[in-house]
Amino acid sequence: MPRFFVAASNIFGGIAYLGAEDAGHFRALRISRGECITVCDGAGNDYTCRVTDVTGDGAEAEIVSVEPSVSEPTVKCTVYAALSKGEKLDTVVQKSVELGASEIVVFPSDRCVAKPDGAALIKRLQRLNKIALSAAEQSERGIIPQVLPAPSFPAAMSSAAGAELPLFCYEEERTVGLRAALDARPDAKTVSIVTGPEGGFTPEEAQLARDCGLISVSLGPRILRCETAPLAALSAVMLLSGNL
Amino acid sequence: MPRFFVAASNIFGGIAYLGAEDAGHFRALRISRGECITVCDGAGNDYTCRVTDVTGDGAEAEIVSVEPSVSEPTVKCTVYAALSKGEKLDTVVQKSVELGASEIVVFPSDRCVAKPDGAALIKRLQRLNKIALSAAEQSERGIIPQVLPAPSFPAAMSSAAGAELPLFCYEEERTVGLRAALDARPDAKTVSIVTGPEGGFTPEEAQLARDCGLISVSLGPRILRCETAPLAALSAVMLLSGNL
Repeated sequence: MPRFFVAASNIFGGIAYLGAEDAGHFRALRISRGECITVCDGAGNDYTCRVTDVTGDGAEAEIVSVEPSVSEPTVKCTVYAALSKGEKLDTVVQKSVELGASEIVVFPSDRCVAKPDGAALIKRLQRLNKIALSAAEQSERGIIPQVLPAPSFPAAMSSAAGAELPLFCYEEERTVGLRAALDARPDAKTVSIVTGPEGGFTPEEAQLARDCGLISVSLGPRILRCETAPLAALSAVMLLSGNL
Repeated sequence: MPRFFVAASNIFGGIAYLGAEDAGHFRALRISRGECITVCDGAGNDYTCRVTDVTGDGAEAEIVSVEPSVSEPTVKCTVYAALSKGEKLDTVVQKSVELGASEIVVFPSDRCVAKPDGAALIKRLQRLNKIALSAAEQSERGIIPQVLPAPSFPAAMSSAAGAELPLFCYEEERTVGLRAALDARPDAKTVSIVTGPEGGFTPEEAQLARDCGLISVSLGPRILRCETAPLAALSAVMLLSGNL
């Protein structure tokens, strides 16, 4: 069933009110009056609704039933991705949402090729949040994971360190593997996955991350691209926590 | 160290002979005489070599030392991907190679949007094999995983069923999860991962796969895109077999 997110404030009196953009999607998907859709309030509730009206300005749908969304993972996993070139970060956001990330944080790093300034970064985040919304609808998430910026590398590490299991994926790590780190904390309910830019992290960044309390882990002997590493690590977290 | 694959027959008398295309890459990467590179024979041997000559026609490098490649996984995992639209299949091939697949097989399926015929398919496979080579070099694989076509859906399933652990990733599967299937065969040395096209498999295809002996598995409650599913499943196989 097609899925649409609306603000909880747009659901009242047994009716869900959808905006002009969603009404446009109705036309693209050939959804007309009488058909059923799923409306999600972004807070974990799924409403099965029957479309009662579609205009150029928006649409209305009457609520038939409501259930808690079943697709949210039991572990809250935030992906911290270094700013990489356009398409790669798009891929990270889209696939992280599909795979169950609760949030994506982008941060600057020494070897980042892309260093967007204020206005460019705001535009980029708008684009990434649109990708996240669309991926949340398509993958049937119960929430829309947000894409947020961290102002600096230290700020990102300090935030990432707040999770019960904060993982720093580091190409030069030779001792601790991802599996060992995950097995050491099987009951962690919050996980951070930090991954680097195209050129990897500098040794100084790795040291700072460790000083903040992050656990440096290897993703194995093969070199993963910057957009592949977070997806492999996220798949691993979801698998071992029973969410894949 | 930059990595180049050459045919085993081009390594003899203590010298590795590289072709014009590799010599072109030397120029792009600014590799000149005296510098060290890794030459891989595609059969699991890594040669550390010093470049002795670069011309327009090719390059020569003297062998300094030879070691078995350490990056090959201990499990042989073949990814069977339904033919999907251009870019998606490119992604599957590139990331499957990075994540350690030993081979990628593409096959037709009822709901495939892309149905390339003879000549178009050959061209497509050439392109996919180039992507596989480049990903193998970049991710430091010891072999170049081949991208091969299966002539039909039943032929693909029959080939996939030959693995010790043949997994059929099916959106409509409600009983068996990926983790359970992997845990039931922890020592499998050969694994098949079969994933569908944009629109998913038909119930008839799923039945045929089961009749061939494949194990139908769910990848969890979130709907993964056709290019994400094989990467999540492959990450899981590599994690649980100690290769991630």
